[in-house]
Amino acid sequence: MARIALDAMGGDHAPQATVDGALHALAELDPSHTIQLVGRTADIEAGLARHTNVPRDRIEIIEAPDVVAMTDKPSAVLRGKKQSSMVIGIELQSAGRSDAFVSAGNTGAQMAASSRVLGLLPGLERPAIATLFPTAGKPVLVLDSGANVDCSPEELLSFARLGAVYAEDLLGRPNPVIGLLSVGEEDEKGSAAVKAANQLLRASGLNFQGNVEGRDLPRGASDRGPIDVVVCDGFVGNVLLKFYETVAPTIIRMVVKASGVDPEQILRALPQLDADSAGGAPLLGVKGVSIISHGKSNAKAIKNAIGVAVRTVESQMTEHAARRLSESFGSAESR
Amino acid sequence: MARIALDAMGGDHAPQATVDGALHALAELDPSHTIQLVGRTADIEAGLARHTNVPRDRIEIIEAPDVVAMTDKPSAVLRGKKQSSMVIGIELQSAGRSDAFVSAGNTGAQMAASSRVLGLLPGLERPAIATLFPTAGKPVLVLDSGANVDCSPEELLSFARLGAVYAEDLLGRPNPVIGLLSVGEEDEKGSAAVKAANQLLRASGLNFQGNVEGRDLPRGASDRGPIDVVVCDGFVGNVLLKFYETVAPTIIRMVVKASGVDPEQILRALPQLDADSAGGAPLLGVKGVSIISHGKSNAKAIKNAIGVAVRTVESQMTEHAARRLSESFGSAESR
Repeated sequence: MARIALDAMGGDHAPQATVDGALHALAELDPSHTIQLVGRTADIEAGLARHTNVPRDRIEIIEAPDVVAMTDKPSAVLRGKKQSSMVIGIELQSAGRSDAFVSAGNTGAQMAASSRVLGLLPGLERPAIATLFPTAGKPVLVLDSGANVDCSPEELLSFARLGAVYAEDLLGRPNPVIGLLSVGEEDEKGSAAVKAANQLLRASGLNFQGNVEGRDLPRGASDRGPIDVVVCDGFVGNVLLKFYETVAPTIIRMVVKASGVDPEQILRALPQLDADSAGGAPLLGVKGVSIISHGKSNAKAIKNAIGVAVRTVESQMTEHAARRLSESFGSAESR
Repeated sequence: MARIALDAMGGDHAPQATVDGALHALAELDPSHTIQLVGRTADIEAGLARHTNVPRDRIEIIEAPDVVAMTDKPSAVLRGKKQSSMVIGIELQSAGRSDAFVSAGNTGAQMAASSRVLGLLPGLERPAIATLFPTAGKPVLVLDSGANVDCSPEELLSFARLGAVYAEDLLGRPNPVIGLLSVGEEDEKGSAAVKAANQLLRASGLNFQGNVEGRDLPRGASDRGPIDVVVCDGFVGNVLLKFYETVAPTIIRMVVKASGVDPEQILRALPQLDADSAGGAPLLGVKGVSIISHGKSNAKAIKNAIGVAVRTVESQMTEHAARRLSESFGSAESR
């Protein structure tokens, strides 16, 4: 059984999309799982009132009078919005009352609050975000696509360990193949940090394939074979992710315009380009479970994010990540 | 009139594609322009023998017994292959016998030989490569997509100046809009080098729009309007370029598979995705003209690369670049 705290106020379509998504999730999940709806009780009750057959025994409403806005600065949230659904929802875990937190709200605030409240695994300055990139083959996990810019070689190694655990526990890929994103496949190609990270990865015990290039991502493979996880700093990862999110629809629009094909027909046939199907991704490196959903999440995306939360808890990914990172640092308690 | 030296031995399809491309170019260009075919005379003559009506008065064959292989290390070429078509072709410019050099050969060797023989403009450690990215709007010039990794803020500023001159002289875009690639549009977002470069660009006198994100590239615009030039370090630029080159055909293949549309129909309707149409790009920052063509160049790509060389010479882009870069360094002779 897992107790999932949902930021009922988070995201562009909250609280209706969050409440709807929670109820859809409960209908699909094993009855042992419960959801904590965190936010303004009146708003949440209004959302629930639009449904019949609400499973009240599996729902807990947790009052939080404040709401984090998308424009709030992460640092200001920690100082000034302690009564927000974001902060209260995360604190449920440190109080032992919940197993995971899910939000489609302000990502920067969620990263900051999760790091502060739950704490970080050793060797990390900030948590990392892993994103699944659709490819011609199996999806590839790319990290960091978040806020870690100017990464040290040791941080890149940590991302590889975190990504490996994610691929094993959530994607079901044993002994996943790791690639290090660079400007050439030879070990000596790349920036200073990437060249040093290559050497650390060679000695890491991970299933490290070597450097991979930008062209390998859409194929899901380099010339040496399929890749499961691609490691890069958060600057490159963020640029690539935002580029990919826009280039796919742009090319499809160009194709539609040129060919006259029905765009709906294309999207129906390419479910891997449907962002809602993933729903959310766990923030990696925090001592707990914090699932980040897109701000535009609809009820389906929220439902899927809750599913990701349940699988993250059940697979004990956080414990596995702590053990893996300790391989770089001797002991998980060493710093 | 321009005298264009062509590396007749460079590229996967040389010397036939190079000789054919040269003759196609001569047929289209103003009769004042001439081409120097640099390479093994016997091979070049064999290529010419397959044509009738060869304009011998506009062709000069320059013997070069050696050939640079695609696998040769750039440093080894400068030391060991001084009699190659690559080195001899570039040296024609320093001897005042030619106005531009075009090659589809080993890009790393061309960059190294061009830098060494022609010299670099002040403030640059290496030349930069600018690539035109097709977008939903006008193509956007992205630089550096070459070999400059770990760039200083000053180098990023130099790329902006070089890109502005390129956009003015070769793309006909007066006072081009410059964007700095980062992970957020706010000035304070990005890596340490990017944040410092933002400040340099704000004070540069260039038409600087501010930071742009990965999502703005396929659109050719940020929320603040269209962009002509996007500046980034050569690591990010190289990853993005190789990603883009592969993701477009991958998505088109997925669409074709899903929709049953004829792929030829799509490619005919999307000429901006035809790599041969650009043909080549001038290496930026060298004191001369060196046009880089793709190793896979066919005769059409070579013809277009020669056209780029002529326009680069006629527009006096190199002189303009030297003047622009001197704005950062007081005088072009200051180092």
